[in-house]
Amino acid sequence: MKNFFEPRRIAVIGASRFKGKVGHDIFKNLLKEKKKVYPVNPNAKKILGRKAYTSILDIKEKIDLAIIAVPARIVPIVLEECGKKKVQNVIIISSGFSEVGNNELEEKIKLIGKKYNIKILGPNCLGIINPHKKLNAAFFNKMPPKGAIAFISQSGALGVAVLDWAIQNKVGLSAFVSIGNASDIKFPELIDYFSKDKHTKAICLYVEGLKDGKKFMSAVLRTQKPVIVLKGGLTESGEKAAATHTAALTTEAGVYKGALKQCGAIQVDNLHQLFEVARHFVYGKAPKGKNGLIITNAGGAGVLASDAFDKNGLNLVDIPEKVLEKLNKVLPIHWSKRNPIDVIGDATPKRYKEVLKILEKERFYDFVFFALTPQTMTEPEEVAKLLVKFHKKTKIPVFGCFMGGDAIRKAKKTLKENGILNFKEPSYGVEVISKMVR
Amino acid sequence: MKNFFEPRRIAVIGASRFKGKVGHDIFKNLLKEKKKVYPVNPNAKKILGRKAYTSILDIKEKIDLAIIAVPARIVPIVLEECGKKKVQNVIIISSGFSEVGNNELEEKIKLIGKKYNIKILGPNCLGIINPHKKLNAAFFNKMPPKGAIAFISQSGALGVAVLDWAIQNKVGLSAFVSIGNASDIKFPELIDYFSKDKHTKAICLYVEGLKDGKKFMSAVLRTQKPVIVLKGGLTESGEKAAATHTAALTTEAGVYKGALKQCGAIQVDNLHQLFEVARHFVYGKAPKGKNGLIITNAGGAGVLASDAFDKNGLNLVDIPEKVLEKLNKVLPIHWSKRNPIDVIGDATPKRYKEVLKILEKERFYDFVFFALTPQTMTEPEEVAKLLVKFHKKTKIPVFGCFMGGDAIRKAKKTLKENGILNFKEPSYGVEVISKMVR
Repeated sequence: MKNFFEPRRIAVIGASRFKGKVGHDIFKNLLKEKKKVYPVNPNAKKILGRKAYTSILDIKEKIDLAIIAVPARIVPIVLEECGKKKVQNVIIISSGFSEVGNNELEEKIKLIGKKYNIKILGPNCLGIINPHKKLNAAFFNKMPPKGAIAFISQSGALGVAVLDWAIQNKVGLSAFVSIGNASDIKFPELIDYFSKDKHTKAICLYVEGLKDGKKFMSAVLRTQKPVIVLKGGLTESGEKAAATHTAALTTEAGVYKGALKQCGAIQVDNLHQLFEVARHFVYGKAPKGKNGLIITNAGGAGVLASDAFDKNGLNLVDIPEKVLEKLNKVLPIHWSKRNPIDVIGDATPKRYKEVLKILEKERFYDFVFFALTPQTMTEPEEVAKLLVKFHKKTKIPVFGCFMGGDAIRKAKKTLKENGILNFKEPSYGVEVISKMVR
Repeated sequence: MKNFFEPRRIAVIGASRFKGKVGHDIFKNLLKEKKKVYPVNPNAKKILGRKAYTSILDIKEKIDLAIIAVPARIVPIVLEECGKKKVQNVIIISSGFSEVGNNELEEKIKLIGKKYNIKILGPNCLGIINPHKKLNAAFFNKMPPKGAIAFISQSGALGVAVLDWAIQNKVGLSAFVSIGNASDIKFPELIDYFSKDKHTKAICLYVEGLKDGKKFMSAVLRTQKPVIVLKGGLTESGEKAAATHTAALTTEAGVYKGALKQCGAIQVDNLHQLFEVARHFVYGKAPKGKNGLIITNAGGAGVLASDAFDKNGLNLVDIPEKVLEKLNKVLPIHWSKRNPIDVIGDATPKRYKEVLKILEKERFYDFVFFALTPQTMTEPEEVAKLLVKFHKKTKIPVFGCFMGGDAIRKAKKTLKENGILNFKEPSYGVEVISKMVR
């Protein structure tokens, strides 16, 4: 698999001189960062300044990865040539196979692949991006930031949106893979690969259908890394739409839910959760249990977070009597005297400091959900610094929910730079945490 | 009620010279925009350059609104003076009443209010902001943009976060009201007021407990404007937290749900939905029914939106045979041939134009959910312009779900300027639409 992600020499079969053509854009994307890229096109002499080859067989050097972007009917011919050239890794971008009912043609390329022992990604896919090796072997013209999330998508177009979003929001990726029709390489091989990849800390999947559920489950069971799954087509309408889209065999929601749970995959409900859960796994350890402590200076935020705890099966842990007594000494007389710890709206950093000092010596909770609103005396950035200290000292997972706009901007930055991510609002935040607790 | 939102002369009882004091900050906030503001403080001669009065009774001019920010035990004394001065509108910012178990003191001020026929907002509240009249009678030092959403909050601190967020995200408000302990003025009077307020198009409430459910329901039934309710304390844990917070009597979730539905209020699940639903009501008419048409260039987005339709009780309407035939003529042979209309990833503005031209003559659907991902040939801004034209011509509610980052920035702006709001991702977006359909 390594040659898909770290190829030295790459051939683009169907490279084109004409802007807007898939074969042009992919070749151009590769050229931006790579030198050893070979265009194959019998109708051109040069493409973007590079000598064009009539066939991949005309290239003297060993080719690690071939990318095919020719019309579907020609794919078997050029794939056969790849086999003869002893290329073992091929990405087929071209569409016009099983996704449009052309199963025969897809079978044909599978057979050729088998005959020559070629690993095929696709057909009908967007390709691969590996920011750590500056490899853009995809039909997408920007490079997402380096990071620790591997994203494997069964929908190419959704992949485009996610990549563009990741760039704008500075969400780092270790790799992006569009698996298309998954005629050969499917989720399991990729999960295995990313299990061993040193950059990857969380594996995100957008799944419409699985062709071999058992293999999938085994791969998830094998890996030590969190596998986060957004399954599309869980409802009747979604299933029908998926059938039209990728010809994927989606089955009953309950079966998927059970299977995913059984193998330890984390099933999320939407795209937002997919990346929020992954980001939190990358940033810190998941809570060891469901016993959470809410600290807030806003009664309403505490109420909403408590509601979300109950709705999502988290436990608002009881505060031991001796801890309550200690807190009584540093908090105003009318503090909540229970979890959520409402330090009252006029809390200054000094009050927070005293509370956190008491809590850092205690271990009756698995994680802290810290909701703050920026009152005049709050000094959010100072509070953020105290929270960072607390987190570093205790190693207990801390989730920020600093709410507001400009008043909390710096505080959020301080948190992020120190491994604490922030949620915009309590309910979606608690949902994300609940997905992380197994 | 008008004097709360459009007062000519305002007295601040407890105005202070000392920065950081509530009475200082509120007085300063008012002074920024208003001239006729009178500080009352027996210990000062001048405050921020204004002559200070020993008592409100010493002010010669008629006072429309008095704001009280003195320690709780002194509130009855100054409120009595307000009565003698014939002030009919008073905001009590001071805390230390029923929220800390001091019910007796709260009863006392209620009696004084009754005796002198004073309308009281609070105690234990943040105050009032009216951007349209540049009135900042609150313990919050910025002014949110003018707009059409009235936000009434039973939690002051949550209000602070929302105001700060609204400023950063340019969400316009017609008013902000923090009702605090709601000893006198409660949600119903405010709903009635905003029903008649020309600027308000949607009324958002954060509710922890209602003291008189019937009055609340009557007020919601009376108004023609959408009332959107986030109810905190719906679960056991949330209820307990709310009891500590505002001493609000929260009751069973089911009772609230039924009552809110019965009177036509829209109950949302979180803060995000509260403002998303309101923004959409401000921007356009709610869908007349639950029959939605999904148009997308991303199969995966169509699948996820379809799932969300089913989960949230929306109906993926069938496309009539004659419309299918027309669409067949302009779409690639392998288009989805059903709702969602998948125009295929390589759709250009030209293809969208032809599809929308067919659909604008048809009326088999109540709204359009338009999900787009930015492929190389997509030209999101051109597509946005086509969608705006379609929306203006048909008057059918259109919801955008342009996904991605920089590639869709301009398109989103074009949509917003023309009355179409955009969702970041299908599932949360469809949730919001489902709340708008009655």
